[in-house]
Amino acid sequence: MSLDRGEIVLRPIGRVRSDFKVKESVPHRGRGLDIKAVVEILPELGPAAGEIRPGDQIWVLTWLHQASRDVLKVHPRGDLSRPLTGVFSTRSPARPNPIGLHLVEVIEVSGDRITVRGLEVLDGTPILDIKPYRLEMDS
Amino acid sequence: MSLDRGEIVLRPIGRVRSDFKVKESVPHRGRGLDIKAVVEILPELGPAAGEIRPGDQIWVLTWLHQASRDVLKVHPRGDLSRPLTGVFSTRSPARPNPIGLHLVEVIEVSGDRITVRGLEVLDGTPILDIKPYRLEMDS
Repeated sequence: MSLDRGEIVLRPIGRVRSDFKVKESVPHRGRGLDIKAVVEILPELGPAAGEIRPGDQIWVLTWLHQASRDVLKVHPRGDLSRPLTGVFSTRSPARPNPIGLHLVEVIEVSGDRITVRGLEVLDGTPILDIKPYRLEMDS
Repeated sequence: MSLDRGEIVLRPIGRVRSDFKVKESVPHRGRGLDIKAVVEILPELGPAAGEIRPGDQIWVLTWLHQASRDVLKVHPRGDLSRPLTGVFSTRSPARPNPIGLHLVEVIEVSGDRITVRGLEVLDGTPILDIKPYRLEMDS
């Protein structure tokens, strides 16, 4: 395929392993739920994750690969009683670039596998980036 | 060009207009600085931003197009006295997928131009996504 000017190519840094095998099973948001998932980092990128420790609060940026990319307005949380709202004012997965932003807690680190709490996405979801949470930048 | 299996193609939803014309002029972090920038949304995506209002706290996700993508460890903030640290435990722009995550305040909205405070990136930086800040998800 040929790329238009301005298009950007990302390569996943890993994948999520979760218990959610179909889209309909993923909860709308899981903060407060005690659901664990595993962040699997590509072995060749392991050094970039080498300082992640249990107890860390981290951002996981995912690629919500089953989300619609051509929707500009949605009823927030699928609630038809709420007015149609531009997707940039919602956390809907449907958006032109369906990047998921998840604040998660690290439970366990074992080699290139990071077990976390708070990452409710489909099994196999590509991961784009991981960043530390920084109170002074993120609140 | 041909895409490997698993690669992901993003299209910018807009660009940042800022006073920073060269990389060396961008401050390390600007929270607390009273520096304004403009988020220019592509006209065809305007409806997706239609409910953004002055006073909103929003995440702007950018593509840090001048950052190195093949660096796995850095000295945090370029301070050589600090040990080399995996980039996934730092907010360095250098990382395999150099996505910038910026929490900014909306100052003014005029058509497809959103003036914000707290977005210190190079003029022309591509924007990938905008999301509302949600206290219950983001803290």
